[in-house]
Amino acid sequence: MTAQGTEEETERQARVVFTPAGRRGQFALGTPVLQAAWELGVDIASICGGRGLCGRCRVVCSEGEFPKHGIVSKPDHLSPAGTVETRFGERNQPLAPGHRLSCQAAIQGDLLIDVPQESQVHRQVVRKEADSRPIRLDPVVRLYLVQVTPADLEGSGSDLTRLLDALETQWNLRPAFPAVLLPDLQGVLRAGEWSVTVAVHQDAEILAIWPGFKESVYGVAIDVGSTTIAGHLCDLGSGDVLSSNGMMNPQIRFGEDLMSRVSYVMMHPDGRDELTREVRRAVNELVAGTAEDGGVDPQDILGLTFVCNPIMHHLLLGISPVKLGEAPFALAVDESVRVAARDLGLEINPGAVAYVLPCIAGHVGADTAGMVLSEQPHGGGAVSLLVDIGTNAEIVLGNDQRLLACSSPTGPAFEGAQVSAGQRAAPGAIERVRIDPVTRESRIRVIGSDLWSDEPGFTDALPAQGVTGICGSGIIEAVVEMWLAGILTSDGVIDGRESSRSGRLVRNGRTFSFVIHGVEDGKQVTVTQTDVRQIQLAKAALFAGIRLLMDRLDVTSVDRIRLAGAFGSHIDVRYAMALGMIPDCPLDAVSAAGNAAGHGARIALLNLASRGEIESVVRRVEKVETAIEPNFQAYFVDAMGIPGGTHAFPDRVRAASDRPARAQRRRSRRTPTRKSN
Amino acid sequence: MTAQGTEEETERQARVVFTPAGRRGQFALGTPVLQAAWELGVDIASICGGRGLCGRCRVVCSEGEFPKHGIVSKPDHLSPAGTVETRFGERNQPLAPGHRLSCQAAIQGDLLIDVPQESQVHRQVVRKEADSRPIRLDPVVRLYLVQVTPADLEGSGSDLTRLLDALETQWNLRPAFPAVLLPDLQGVLRAGEWSVTVAVHQDAEILAIWPGFKESVYGVAIDVGSTTIAGHLCDLGSGDVLSSNGMMNPQIRFGEDLMSRVSYVMMHPDGRDELTREVRRAVNELVAGTAEDGGVDPQDILGLTFVCNPIMHHLLLGISPVKLGEAPFALAVDESVRVAARDLGLEINPGAVAYVLPCIAGHVGADTAGMVLSEQPHGGGAVSLLVDIGTNAEIVLGNDQRLLACSSPTGPAFEGAQVSAGQRAAPGAIERVRIDPVTRESRIRVIGSDLWSDEPGFTDALPAQGVTGICGSGIIEAVVEMWLAGILTSDGVIDGRESSRSGRLVRNGRTFSFVIHGVEDGKQVTVTQTDVRQIQLAKAALFAGIRLLMDRLDVTSVDRIRLAGAFGSHIDVRYAMALGMIPDCPLDAVSAAGNAAGHGARIALLNLASRGEIESVVRRVEKVETAIEPNFQAYFVDAMGIPGGTHAFPDRVRAASDRPARAQRRRSRRTPTRKSN
Repeated sequence: MTAQGTEEETERQARVVFTPAGRRGQFALGTPVLQAAWELGVDIASICGGRGLCGRCRVVCSEGEFPKHGIVSKPDHLSPAGTVETRFGERNQPLAPGHRLSCQAAIQGDLLIDVPQESQVHRQVVRKEADSRPIRLDPVVRLYLVQVTPADLEGSGSDLTRLLDALETQWNLRPAFPAVLLPDLQGVLRAGEWSVTVAVHQDAEILAIWPGFKESVYGVAIDVGSTTIAGHLCDLGSGDVLSSNGMMNPQIRFGEDLMSRVSYVMMHPDGRDELTREVRRAVNELVAGTAEDGGVDPQDILGLTFVCNPIMHHLLLGISPVKLGEAPFALAVDESVRVAARDLGLEINPGAVAYVLPCIAGHVGADTAGMVLSEQPHGGGAVSLLVDIGTNAEIVLGNDQRLLACSSPTGPAFEGAQVSAGQRAAPGAIERVRIDPVTRESRIRVIGSDLWSDEPGFTDALPAQGVTGICGSGIIEAVVEMWLAGILTSDGVIDGRESSRSGRLVRNGRTFSFVIHGVEDGKQVTVTQTDVRQIQLAKAALFAGIRLLMDRLDVTSVDRIRLAGAFGSHIDVRYAMALGMIPDCPLDAVSAAGNAAGHGARIALLNLASRGEIESVVRRVEKVETAIEPNFQAYFVDAMGIPGGTHAFPDRVRAASDRPARAQRRRSRRTPTRKSN
Repeated sequence: MTAQGTEEETERQARVVFTPAGRRGQFALGTPVLQAAWELGVDIASICGGRGLCGRCRVVCSEGEFPKHGIVSKPDHLSPAGTVETRFGERNQPLAPGHRLSCQAAIQGDLLIDVPQESQVHRQVVRKEADSRPIRLDPVVRLYLVQVTPADLEGSGSDLTRLLDALETQWNLRPAFPAVLLPDLQGVLRAGEWSVTVAVHQDAEILAIWPGFKESVYGVAIDVGSTTIAGHLCDLGSGDVLSSNGMMNPQIRFGEDLMSRVSYVMMHPDGRDELTREVRRAVNELVAGTAEDGGVDPQDILGLTFVCNPIMHHLLLGISPVKLGEAPFALAVDESVRVAARDLGLEINPGAVAYVLPCIAGHVGADTAGMVLSEQPHGGGAVSLLVDIGTNAEIVLGNDQRLLACSSPTGPAFEGAQVSAGQRAAPGAIERVRIDPVTRESRIRVIGSDLWSDEPGFTDALPAQGVTGICGSGIIEAVVEMWLAGILTSDGVIDGRESSRSGRLVRNGRTFSFVIHGVEDGKQVTVTQTDVRQIQLAKAALFAGIRLLMDRLDVTSVDRIRLAGAFGSHIDVRYAMALGMIPDCPLDAVSAAGNAAGHGARIALLNLASRGEIESVVRRVEKVETAIEPNFQAYFVDAMGIPGGTHAFPDRVRAASDRPARAQRRRSRRTPTRKSN
């Protein structure tokens, strides 16, 4: 390569400016634009290394006078398109007008060259969901086309030596070559007539090798929840999501909640084996499904990332979760784990590498790490509160100075479990409740219908199942509305004194229940005294956990609250605040984070630097173990009352309570899978 | 730890000298001897890190006045043996008189401390075979006992983090921990009550972990020949050989010689799979056998090393050998290969690592690299010639300046194949032949008997099989003796003109045969004209290869000749020289190298530095491909005559020809397995 400005002085040179990088230099006429860009450190992608095969290095010549740079740039300051570019256009789609392959176009005069997003290695992935941050590509696995010197009798070394020498000469890389790839090496080299594409992991290790030019490899970001397992298949080079898929976690047959699965392992000698086999089988099925949907050969999948709670994390890795079920809740491993996909029994490319995000503590898993990576609470001075509500609530609080995390034992009431008419958020479940404070009549809305029960056509618009029960967000609204209507005392007692005035108040022995729906027909959905207690216990646990972290961080308010997961997408935050689940905060600073854990898995899949980032962030997270915090119990008792929190109430809730949150609901229903932890 | 001489000046100090290292220093009274030794960089072993459990750190106090060091050393300048040493003696054998555990004995006055060989990490392994060099221990895998902080609720990190932290604090190591070991981690830590022994590979990666104190781990050095597979089980910490074992290579059913196995792979779609499965199955069987014989649990085997010819090398690693069967004989890989034993399907500890020595060229394999490592031709200025004779002969020539290697196509005649009465060296085979130049009567000796056929009791002393044929060394002696007796012309024609004078000369059509044995009974062993031609072709190929290398190195003589393998151990070197197989050289500079390749595998198993050494030596070996050397054919034709070579002949042969080489034969028979390549 000739360097700019250092060759013979008689050589004719031109000035070239690259945008948006803003780099500039002088180059001898005839220098390919790609070479000039690389010499200046301008980020232009290439798999084929300048052979006009991959088309990744397209650039556009900006035409005009650029006084700032002192140049006049014209398309004809580039060498005319030759046969290589013509052939590229024939084999693929023709190049867009004004686009040139920078490896073929040579500098013939002053130029201002624009490198479009799609030609940059480190481009931004266009975000699909409004509530998740864009991802900057920093490929973990990259493809390189190499021309290998053919074998000869002159002692030129083994095929592997010549391959590695070619990689070093042509790409300045000397990665390791794992022994398991050796059986295919010679066949691939000859099938490609000594031209092969290698996939290199972190520029350090070859994962796979194909004859000739290979355009794309893929990865799957996987969120292994207790209830569902979801995966996104992505192109590792472009970041595009090709397909998304979800399925039930087959471990459910060993127990709905995690603790019953831990018990199963304790009671059965092969229990851990069984559960591990089941989850790996499910992951295999999921990955195969995403590959099929995305039209991708599973052999082209080279990377996986996983987020999961600590118990799923251990089971996935074949580690018994028993120690996580008893104090001191010791994780076998909390650092990130890198493991060959074949060691997990996954049937994708044998060179594929799985990356499991780090866990934070015994109850705060890699899913929370994924949430942190996605939500970036450490990214600035504003104090963020992240809450992911499942059977436990994982809570993260802090900013770029300090970050704290804990898990709070909310129990599954917010998921609709352990509530008499409770159910998972699914079509037919009551998700919105309003009670008239005067008449004490209630009206509802169910998942699967946009109509309130007092609107015309409600019954016809119901989903096929009819009204089947009440989900977490519904029960929360019911409890708040009951209190607003004076049916519930601040201690959480359903006040039966007026039962004669309302047919909805029903006596059960010494306590009362409130009929939310169906007072006139046979099918009733009721909130019992025990249900109210469950919700009180859950919200008190959550709030006590948050208060503990706020104490530790020495703050009395937060700047931003993000509610992650399916629950966070369903809940009306005004009610969450009214019930005292979360601290007072301007309403517009509270929002749903969507599947933040899963989004974190996708970031880790596509951006190498993010792995180091989350590992270092997790290391400095201060872990708070609620079980041994002296204040936790007191805070918990404090938070039992209704309403909770410290906020101006109930005006704000009331003021907004009749605006249906349709937009939010529609968005969450479009998400193909719901994380339920 | 307190450093010597830098603490408060009032602190009382003593002078301590360590032998044989010759290191010395001043230490505060009360310093444990082991600590003092480590601070001075004196090589003392320890697994338990100073807890008085492993007993590896024993030292002896030398008593007396040592004016050179200015000290008087006395045993009572060490603290008295306390309960730890007493308990060690009770649990194990009592310490020998004068021996102390250096981790327990504290410095109380001036001392001269002797560190015996067995307490050094880098000790010499006592050699068992007279013809192999001693091995200096430089353990590839080392054991470390660590005390891990128990899990608590205070956020002390995962079990793994605490284990790695303990290794760093207690041993100054931070090795990687592979994901496949995670499932056992928590159980092992608790079973050992937070005291565990870890096996660390190259101080960089943990291979295995056991509860409590673990004393020994093992490795097997394996020589995979075309015909036999042999292994030595060694203690990786002491270098002791615990058992040796050999078996037939089951691939023989796919073809005796390597080329027929390559053909099998070419002809059968699953041929490579089958052959790989067979050799790996055999290696598993061999390793299991050595473990059983050595009384070792296969789970305690953590290392394997392999030497093998290129075709076995490829088949073992699952690589098709087809490219090695056709020009340009390209190896898939020539560099050393490190591979997880489980990826080879080997049923030992799942963390075990196999190391395959590098290959030199398409016909010069890892077995030759093992021979080089064992024979060290690069160790000095003397020009060594190493020859390993199998179906091909591998030839290495050179010194510390240059090293050359080639393979010469001798064919299998030296192994007794393609010879009419030929057979493998086994009981009943004629291995010695003498012909009276006057009477032309011959006498013989067979493997399995010490008597010559003209000695009384010969028939009774024969092995059960009787006389079954003639092996490689026998046919060589027969040809030389036939020439000495005037039965053979210098062109290699059996001269039938005197057939009337000797009943041993028999006509076959247009040529004659010579009856070596059994002229009076029915069972005859005969040397035919074709047999002589086979031997001529073989020895000419060998000599032409050697001459080519000597030409290249620009030498006309060599300083040392080493004949490796079973053939090298059986042959009488005078006959080899007489026949012109090897160049002229003082007889006492020619010797058998035994199983040099296998010895090289043992060196690589026990000495980490030797791996880097052989890798770098192999890289600079100049490969000579006989197939494309213009001179090879001419040299080959030149070398066809009998006698060959350039030596004073036949006086030297004749002079010694009647001294039976019994000692040599006995030694070779004691070797449990014979390498036959």
